[in-house]
Amino acid sequence: MIGCDCDVCRSSDPRDKRLRSSIYIQTPECSFVVDTGTDFRMQALRENIRRVDAAIFTHSHTDHIMGFDDLRRFAYDRGYMPVYASEETMRDLERVFTFAFKGLNPFPGYLKPEPHMIDGPFELGSTNITPLPVPHGNTIVNGYLFSRGRWNIDFQSVGPAPKAFGAVSGSAEFNSAGHTGLEAHVPAPGEKLVAYLSDCSAVPDAIIDLISGVKILIIDALREKPHPTHLNVDQALEVASRVRPNETYLTHIAHELPQSAELRLPSRTHIAYDGLKLNL
Amino acid sequence: MIGCDCDVCRSSDPRDKRLRSSIYIQTPECSFVVDTGTDFRMQALRENIRRVDAAIFTHSHTDHIMGFDDLRRFAYDRGYMPVYASEETMRDLERVFTFAFKGLNPFPGYLKPEPHMIDGPFELGSTNITPLPVPHGNTIVNGYLFSRGRWNIDFQSVGPAPKAFGAVSGSAEFNSAGHTGLEAHVPAPGEKLVAYLSDCSAVPDAIIDLISGVKILIIDALREKPHPTHLNVDQALEVASRVRPNETYLTHIAHELPQSAELRLPSRTHIAYDGLKLNL
Repeated sequence: MIGCDCDVCRSSDPRDKRLRSSIYIQTPECSFVVDTGTDFRMQALRENIRRVDAAIFTHSHTDHIMGFDDLRRFAYDRGYMPVYASEETMRDLERVFTFAFKGLNPFPGYLKPEPHMIDGPFELGSTNITPLPVPHGNTIVNGYLFSRGRWNIDFQSVGPAPKAFGAVSGSAEFNSAGHTGLEAHVPAPGEKLVAYLSDCSAVPDAIIDLISGVKILIIDALREKPHPTHLNVDQALEVASRVRPNETYLTHIAHELPQSAELRLPSRTHIAYDGLKLNL
Repeated sequence: MIGCDCDVCRSSDPRDKRLRSSIYIQTPECSFVVDTGTDFRMQALRENIRRVDAAIFTHSHTDHIMGFDDLRRFAYDRGYMPVYASEETMRDLERVFTFAFKGLNPFPGYLKPEPHMIDGPFELGSTNITPLPVPHGNTIVNGYLFSRGRWNIDFQSVGPAPKAFGAVSGSAEFNSAGHTGLEAHVPAPGEKLVAYLSDCSAVPDAIIDLISGVKILIIDALREKPHPTHLNVDQALEVASRVRPNETYLTHIAHELPQSAELRLPSRTHIAYDGLKLNL
């Protein structure tokens, strides 16, 4: 944290140097990012990201959207960038990045967003994406469940039937940050691969049921001390104990929580760090 | 640049790794920043900046404002952050950071801007700051002239008489990025110390007259090739030849221009780089 001399801010563990939360997903058909926080350019450079076919947003707080304009690098050839967000988040994106949404800049290379309002599950390539509305303080924001193959999840609790987006069949490689060196694993149809809940102060029962048994749970755990708009570590672990994922990764970590605290966590529970890559 | 393999983007010269343009100014009375671009948090951490008493904005393009929310760290103790901007830029800041300007977030520590509309020269401590309206493509943005001591500059061309802001007399140390190890030099009263023109496509004669003979000229020079909204190197050099500063620093450099191009520039002309510190 700026101007802080605490143990974590002075830590020599590179994993204690944290940029703002975001994930990048590569599949055989397409690649997309969830949130473009203020550090998006830096993250894209660090991971040498070459392709973003769409951007999905959880909500419009500054730490999740202020890198939006840097999507232009990935839209240049195509001329536009598909943007997926709830109605409220899209409204905020349009307010903040008016020049882009209104096409006010006539020069080539400037970002032209293609808005897709999320009102239920949707597809990017063969990845099924289910919005997971969760409270984040006094607001409701979207987490997302990513699955592959047939839609065999009961979506009744979250919205209408899925809408197609350039669906292409294919085997699945599902990475968090651009690593392509491993053999692709083809998941069972409709397998729940990742639930991403980066910002939440509670997880309703219906959402826990929906993501129950997911392979990877990535969940907000700001710090040990309670916080009005984020889960703390104990609350995140309690959610995880009900979801029963194969692995749990805590994210959106504040400087009160060192990476070394991972040693005290239950088995198969980790503190995510910048640049972490998962191959599914 | 994201996804680029050009010589500059692959350069091993650390000065070829560039974040977005901004300057930080330390004086004996107070410290302030010009623009809070998307990289502001990263820059504040890198330079271990501990104090920002005010933020001044040149204009509201994304590369100059999107780090605004990170000013909160410097406003926490005081409870507010003085923000200086033209009427148009302030309107954009209020639109983009509505939650901050409207005080929508009730939690302690959130940013409360204190807007100061710039309509002429003003003071921060004993530093005199004169807005320099310059064309930036089809828009007009503010450069700034910084001087110390008595107001002995003819401000008629740019606006009304200076307004006071917590003026405190004192000897002058005037740094670009937080370095305090050198002996302070006390400039002559009203000495024109720095003219900062980060974004401009031309510099009108009245502005050249106003900043004529300034000690340091920091001026937009995007690249060698002309650009519709930025000066190129030749155009910047032409302005410098008329301003006749002691030293010229080219800024807002694109990846088309390597740091090594400095060797081909006239004497006392430099390519600015991230972390550059000037002691006046």
